[in-house]
Amino acid sequence: MKKLRIKDIAKDLSISKTAVSFILNGRAQEKRISGELVERVEKYIQEVGFRPSAIARGLRTGKSNIIGLMVESISDPFFATIARLIENEAYKEGYRIIYCSTDNDTEKTKELINVLRERNVDGYIISPPPGVEKEINELIKAGMPVVMFDRYLAKVKTDYVVIDNEFSAENATRYLLKQGYRNIGFITFSSSLTQMKGRMKGYRTALREEGWKPYVLEIDFTPDEKVMVQTVKDFLVANPKLDAVLFGAVQAGACGLKAMTQLKMKVPQDLAVISFDDHDIFELFATPVTAIAQPIEKIAHKVISLLLDRLDAENGAGVVKEIVLKTRLKVRASSGVKAE
Amino acid sequence: MKKLRIKDIAKDLSISKTAVSFILNGRAQEKRISGELVERVEKYIQEVGFRPSAIARGLRTGKSNIIGLMVESISDPFFATIARLIENEAYKEGYRIIYCSTDNDTEKTKELINVLRERNVDGYIISPPPGVEKEINELIKAGMPVVMFDRYLAKVKTDYVVIDNEFSAENATRYLLKQGYRNIGFITFSSSLTQMKGRMKGYRTALREEGWKPYVLEIDFTPDEKVMVQTVKDFLVANPKLDAVLFGAVQAGACGLKAMTQLKMKVPQDLAVISFDDHDIFELFATPVTAIAQPIEKIAHKVISLLLDRLDAENGAGVVKEIVLKTRLKVRASSGVKAE
Repeated sequence: MKKLRIKDIAKDLSISKTAVSFILNGRAQEKRISGELVERVEKYIQEVGFRPSAIARGLRTGKSNIIGLMVESISDPFFATIARLIENEAYKEGYRIIYCSTDNDTEKTKELINVLRERNVDGYIISPPPGVEKEINELIKAGMPVVMFDRYLAKVKTDYVVIDNEFSAENATRYLLKQGYRNIGFITFSSSLTQMKGRMKGYRTALREEGWKPYVLEIDFTPDEKVMVQTVKDFLVANPKLDAVLFGAVQAGACGLKAMTQLKMKVPQDLAVISFDDHDIFELFATPVTAIAQPIEKIAHKVISLLLDRLDAENGAGVVKEIVLKTRLKVRASSGVKAE
Repeated sequence: MKKLRIKDIAKDLSISKTAVSFILNGRAQEKRISGELVERVEKYIQEVGFRPSAIARGLRTGKSNIIGLMVESISDPFFATIARLIENEAYKEGYRIIYCSTDNDTEKTKELINVLRERNVDGYIISPPPGVEKEINELIKAGMPVVMFDRYLAKVKTDYVVIDNEFSAENATRYLLKQGYRNIGFITFSSSLTQMKGRMKGYRTALREEGWKPYVLEIDFTPDEKVMVQTVKDFLVANPKLDAVLFGAVQAGACGLKAMTQLKMKVPQDLAVISFDDHDIFELFATPVTAIAQPIEKIAHKVISLLLDRLDAENGAGVVKEIVLKTRLKVRASSGVKAE
């Protein structure tokens, strides 16, 4: 593959590289380059498809109208839906979104921050993995607007939008207790991120205050779902006393429902279920599953509004906004009253 | 928000803009600029966070190591999963992916092609809407590698990866006939795209050859799912003779299952079901749903391999590869033998 370079244009048209560069950078008039020459270069460019550098233009206007969006994994339905809603709102405001998946991998995320930075994006929306505090703080120091969501980094002072994870998990656990369940498991992904720690804490608080024992399974995430389903099966078989389970994320819930189906467990008779994040699989499962629904539209709207506010602001500073939104427990048949 | 410009650097360090520009463009030695001055500029840049234009470097090296990936909607689980797998493989080969959603909107897609082009991406992976033939042909003419997937454009001569849509739909319809169903509906999204036309054709062929009447519902896609669910409900109520239905896409299937649940229809007793594309909702539905599974891993692998081959090739030409992959009918309980 061959890309056209300034020197190629100069050579083909038998003019100086400097003249080509001035024309490409919109400085022809200032540099008193003849209209005839500008036309020749523009015609040539149109024919062969070279485009002047957006970044070169960005250096003059200071804007690319592109927002970089970094999520844990674009194949996670929660992130995919939020990304889509953010893209829609941004598009209406004249901004384009480019996405990347971080895999929650610290090194990959650092590198992707650089990729986006070199692409001259105007601002960043990030659901960060641990360990990228330095890189994000550098962006902020350089005057770049950054909004975090889903989780935040304690050592980064910038706007974020999260949900009340601790309360949501505590509330769901108390709901299961109220329905008569006593041996309630928590099945989630192992994670040191704020949102996951909040969910774990809420679950433990409810059980501790009511005097019941916690049963926790932290799955190591792997793209091979069968391995994770087997992990859940092993846990359920090893803990026959369990009468209910709270899942800490959609994908944990999906693995759990598959494990329970394979073990021919009836919901809620053998095991009552509540899961974080609402999703079609919960609505359409044999026994519809009670879900802790995040306000997806509101999250997306807040995230993009905060970023647009910062993009519009004349200076990068201003009060840091930390938005915590409420969830809703969508009660369905999977958490019905415990049978005697 | 303020971005640093070449003239700001020059002013702050009291040196000429030309010198700054030469240093940023890696031409300091060639231009006999002192090492001391280069160091001052580099130190300044490190401190304030300015980065030399990746595109300026791209003009010299001819590479950005970025691939642009344009899908219909990143919130569609089919595209989200493919995008993720492509990203994983590309990452291993040293390429980063930036995604956009086209919404199947011709104008938006044209604009996004320009956005990516201005970001200096090395190549494009596109599942194109209709009407962008001219823009894609311009990319190809400019020497850019382009691979299409999921659907193709007849007037664009470039590599693509699709599945055998017509055979897959015909095969699924014949399977329902073999199981004893006679009044088989096809519920899909209205679309002029090759893959959707192929599915429709396969469905019609099977019924015509066996002498049965087609019942087709083409849903106009809208982000408001409730509207689409209602459309399916109206269709099912208006056609009480239907004993089976083939869904043309995951999201049509999801709407259909919700409509059937609301109408309290039993699967397969009241209505047998097969849907295009496998998904958790089909595996976990009250009656597990028979699905036409696309070879997602293979599609992703082929797409990125074709693009990498073109990126590695010295010239942009070469034989156009048109890859058609087979699907697999995953038989589950929803298409059981028709009850007498």
